Amino acid sequence: MLDYKLLEALTAVVDQGGFERGAQRLGLTQSAVSQRIKLLEARLGQAVLVRGPRPAPTPVGRRLLNHARQVRLLEHDLLDQVPTLGEADTRLRLAINADSLATWWPASMASFCREQRLLFELLVEDQEVALKRMRDGEVAGCLCDSPRPVQGARSHALGQMRYRALASPDFVARHFAQGLDHAALRRAPAIVYGPDDRLQHRYLARHDFHEPFPHHLCPSSEGFVGMALAGLGYGMIPERQVARELAEGRLVELPSPEPRARRIEVPLYWHHWRQGGETLAALTRHLLRQAGDHLEPLSTNDDAPHQAGHR
Amino acid sequence: MLDYKLLEALTAVVDQGGFERGAQRLGLTQSAVSQRIKLLEARLGQAVLVRGPRPAPTPVGRRLLNHARQVRLLEHDLLDQVPTLGEADTRLRLAINADSLATWWPASMASFCREQRLLFELLVEDQEVALKRMRDGEVAGCLCDSPRPVQGARSHALGQMRYRALASPDFVARHFAQGLDHAALRRAPAIVYGPDDRLQHRYLARHDFHEPFPHHLCPSSEGFVGMALAGLGYGMIPERQVARELAEGRLVELPSPEPRARRIEVPLYWHHWRQGGETLAALTRHLLRQAGDHLEPLSTNDDAPHQAGHR
Repeated sequence: MLDYKLLEALTAVVDQGGFERGAQRLGLTQSAVSQRIKLLEARLGQAVLVRGPRPAPTPVGRRLLNHARQVRLLEHDLLDQVPTLGEADTRLRLAINADSLATWWPASMASFCREQRLLFELLVEDQEVALKRMRDGEVAGCLCDSPRPVQGARSHALGQMRYRALASPDFVARHFAQGLDHAALRRAPAIVYGPDDRLQHRYLARHDFHEPFPHHLCPSSEGFVGMALAGLGYGMIPERQVARELAEGRLVELPSPEPRARRIEVPLYWHHWRQGGETLAALTRHLLRQAGDHLEPLSTNDDAPHQAGHR
Repeated sequence: MLDYKLLEALTAVVDQGGFERGAQRLGLTQSAVSQRIKLLEARLGQAVLVRGPRPAPTPVGRRLLNHARQVRLLEHDLLDQVPTLGEADTRLRLAINADSLATWWPASMASFCREQRLLFELLVEDQEVALKRMRDGEVAGCLCDSPRPVQGARSHALGQMRYRALASPDFVARHFAQGLDHAALRRAPAIVYGPDDRLQHRYLARHDFHEPFPHHLCPSSEGFVGMALAGLGYGMIPERQVARELAEGRLVELPSPEPRARRIEVPLYWHHWRQGGETLAALTRHLLRQAGDHLEPLSTNDDAPHQAGHR
């Protein structure tokens, strides 16, 4: 078998972002960690790390890292059956879309994590990157709005998040006193999460507005809501993220004349490795059970469900 | 002078993440935008873009982009003096640390943005990257915990954010019923923002705990708070971010026996280009006026103010 002490050293250096921290993590000296990695490279006949202020894996290093992560997951499963083996420090790497992480994901995971003694390493990625990381084996699962699984993975529909166009009452009074007309939309600043976030564009297209519009760019779910609350702009916000602000009247809906155009539903799919072991399978069952409490049921008559962009 | 139509095409393609969207943004056809960029490249004798699903600037392309952004800022200033020139669509690019964006930044910007008719393009970056982007001229300003300005920039102390070690009451009862002892810290999962976030390490070091500790990794301010609320772990959270949750008893402080060890203060500095024009100068004055309402006064007796990591 492979010498997993060497792979463990590689994983620690990459995950902790340096030799010194990696050594701390393992309770070893820096020179011991450095020797293990040199030994690994000598056996392979090629480098596994690009040295620098933050060491990065080479392509072959990345393949070894992915393998080490998969082995860790399987060890976690084994530990359930043979608890005397010792304590596994299993960290499950998942890519989660920003709005899920800012809303329903933590609450839905509470009981599962307690029972499984599982640690998460979460990445916040846009959809294309998340699926690429699935394909490269860098994450064991991801949440995104595309139903198509990458090779070696499965996907499950969980439900959908409902977005509404919201702003502060003051902002609406200032910009939309005459209603949601095109003159107002040309001047009122929107908030857009990033270049892949097309939700505002879709909302405007439903109101026959296809021109460029002024917008802030704010790649943070909470910053997005904060900017809307502060009256800096309007934007599409998950209804459940701001239930309290809506109830308190601190955010209100734009005065759209078309009730059917007001809400945009974004579907969410859970993707996971097919050969991910029992922990990942249990997480999948848990997510499918929990989804109904946190998401709207999936509808299939949305206008463009896969051009929603992802945030 | 340079042909700014060509630079505008380059900026639109990069900022919008593609030729099609860049063309939409400018109200041009895709082929017109493509021709402008080819013309620019023909004049320079080298490529300005690396073509691909998301076109990226080459080194020379990046220099042109930075120049175009600086010119935009100066145009915005000019427009204040010569309003009949037309409407400038000025977007100020700033790098903001995640916890500021999730807490005080949006509220502090409300009145300023309204008066200046300014749009923000915010980047959430860790400190080293933020300062590198300042140095490369990619952002006009940044918020971070280092006082040292890069060349061509100035920095100003704004104040500090106070972090406390918080968890759900249920989590504290489960893990720390016997107090904050080392046995408990070896088992209770923490939440860490990312590899650069050393706040939890500093808190534990103040309690004479220097071993590895189990932790989730969650690179999202709101996800971080969500995980603490859901009882998945404890972590250092800005006091002002969760004033309501603390008042409602949904988050409580870990039972540290040492009152002086409970709070960690992280200083915040505003960095900006020296030659950024009047808009940036006005923003700086506004920030310095506002800081007192949103941050604690800066203290200078902290134990390790510049190893706080950044989030």
